[in-house]
Amino acid sequence: MALGEFELIDRYFRQPADALRRQRGDVPVGIGDDAALLAVPPGMQLVAALDTLVEGRHFLPGCRADSVGHRALAVNLSDLAAMGALPAWYLLALTLPRADEAFIAPFARGMLELAARHGAAMVGGDTTGGPLAVSVQVLGLVEPGQALLRSGGRPGDLLFVSGTPGDAAGGLQLEQEPAAAAAMSVADAAWLRDRFLFPTPRVALGRALRGIATACIDVSDGLAADAGKLALASNCAVRIDLEHLPCSPALRALRGEEGARRAALCGGDDYELCFTVPPGKLPQIAAVAANVKCPLTCIGSLVEGASIDVRHRGIPVESDTRGYDHFDGR
Amino acid sequence: MALGEFELIDRYFRQPADALRRQRGDVPVGIGDDAALLAVPPGMQLVAALDTLVEGRHFLPGCRADSVGHRALAVNLSDLAAMGALPAWYLLALTLPRADEAFIAPFARGMLELAARHGAAMVGGDTTGGPLAVSVQVLGLVEPGQALLRSGGRPGDLLFVSGTPGDAAGGLQLEQEPAAAAAMSVADAAWLRDRFLFPTPRVALGRALRGIATACIDVSDGLAADAGKLALASNCAVRIDLEHLPCSPALRALRGEEGARRAALCGGDDYELCFTVPPGKLPQIAAVAANVKCPLTCIGSLVEGASIDVRHRGIPVESDTRGYDHFDGR
Repeated sequence: MALGEFELIDRYFRQPADALRRQRGDVPVGIGDDAALLAVPPGMQLVAALDTLVEGRHFLPGCRADSVGHRALAVNLSDLAAMGALPAWYLLALTLPRADEAFIAPFARGMLELAARHGAAMVGGDTTGGPLAVSVQVLGLVEPGQALLRSGGRPGDLLFVSGTPGDAAGGLQLEQEPAAAAAMSVADAAWLRDRFLFPTPRVALGRALRGIATACIDVSDGLAADAGKLALASNCAVRIDLEHLPCSPALRALRGEEGARRAALCGGDDYELCFTVPPGKLPQIAAVAANVKCPLTCIGSLVEGASIDVRHRGIPVESDTRGYDHFDGR
Repeated sequence: MALGEFELIDRYFRQPADALRRQRGDVPVGIGDDAALLAVPPGMQLVAALDTLVEGRHFLPGCRADSVGHRALAVNLSDLAAMGALPAWYLLALTLPRADEAFIAPFARGMLELAARHGAAMVGGDTTGGPLAVSVQVLGLVEPGQALLRSGGRPGDLLFVSGTPGDAAGGLQLEQEPAAAAAMSVADAAWLRDRFLFPTPRVALGRALRGIATACIDVSDGLAADAGKLALASNCAVRIDLEHLPCSPALRALRGEEGARRAALCGGDDYELCFTVPPGKLPQIAAVAANVKCPLTCIGSLVEGASIDVRHRGIPVESDTRGYDHFDGR
């Protein structure tokens, strides 16, 4: 007997969710009732985010389904990371043109593997017919007063970014123009593709930055744009020193020095963390970087004002080369 | 200057959300950071549900936008109602082909009016470009041990339904075939349309049933199908007495006696509550009905077994007239 739409989805999602539910111990009722019942630990605040991926907008038609599953959860975990929160539970709204096992099986694997890595339990969801889209609602926990907000930065704070931003933009380019990989090493091309298809939500970093970072945001729309949002929320201007942007060798191989910097500044989908640290707490940052095994690079600072000031060796870069919107309200 | 996509959506959603945030006092951080920060009151459990409406599947193309906004939240509040939970916060994922003020303004009004009625604060969300779809994630609160589950029913419990199921199916018919309203009074036609376009989540009823109902489910897929899910979760069979189904005069005017019963049994989108009550607690049900100003009708009972047994004046109804799936795994 052919599996129906809902049975198919249940088959891939229900069992692992039950296993995780037993594992977590704070899910009195998970998938299968009208709503999930969740036991928030005493003394913790709840952190909630909701992000949607739409085919053709956030991922390419025909894209690897395991990547779609991974990314749909990763972009939400990245929001939790930017708050310094610990992932706890998530719900999935999956809209599919048809119940296609060749899509659902790797999609579920990609999502469940990432969830397991972060101890997050799927506790509910909704499957509907329609154009392919994935909404994930993630719930996390943070100690009261310890959440990292965008608004805590002050003039003089140093601006940091994790990892090597721009790689996801390089990976997207390779997905769209496979021929561009011809001049690169196989390992470099694979690195960039992997950064786009399977981004790493910096959850451990976000947790480690509690009490150290004054403000934090995740880099989804591009480093300059997101640093600008942090600065705006903190009532500051932000200065970014182009020559300090940490570009991966793989991105340099694809784009050259200048192109790599532009991708690092303006490319999207990196899901790195951009955060501010008062100079007095600088010594703690090296320890954090070692603990979470992720490079952390100082790329500028917050200053008085209300602008995004991008410089190269101290010289302001022409505004028409920046390629991002200034304080566009988002 | 023309409003951009995000500014337009912000304009309709951000201000009222801020107002609600101040009103609730348990939203340390709402819309505008990477995620919302929420203070769950000590001693309360969290209830989470996520439902999606897709154009062409859950609402008709060209449907009134205020109805889409209302229904997208109502179907989620109905899930909370079925758990006996009090709505607290919600997040909206809105996918729109384009930023169309003629859609967004009434959509927001429909959603915000219903939210205000239930004291629910919008605390976050995500807007994307793509085929029209609305996912709402709702979070509610319930006292530990008091949530209404599907699984608590026992043989001998009486089966109740709120309101007049089938009306939404009648309203949908009038939306699709306006000529069918010709033989009806204007008031009757308006009643049915309103039940489809603006369903009432039975939140107060769900709260009042704590400690009285043994099991509860909301009626979204049809009364027989959803009563069957409740019975399945409770390891019981369910008997429904057709002659006791509460059909509205408006539905009878549209469909006749027999057609009204069929709509009440199999029509979807009513968002009434279907619940079970032990005979000893029957006296409390009349008081609940009076308090919440909603008719509550006994339509059958749970019995030993594992089937849906629909009878008319004691005689089993032919299975091919039921029009619903038996225990189809959802």
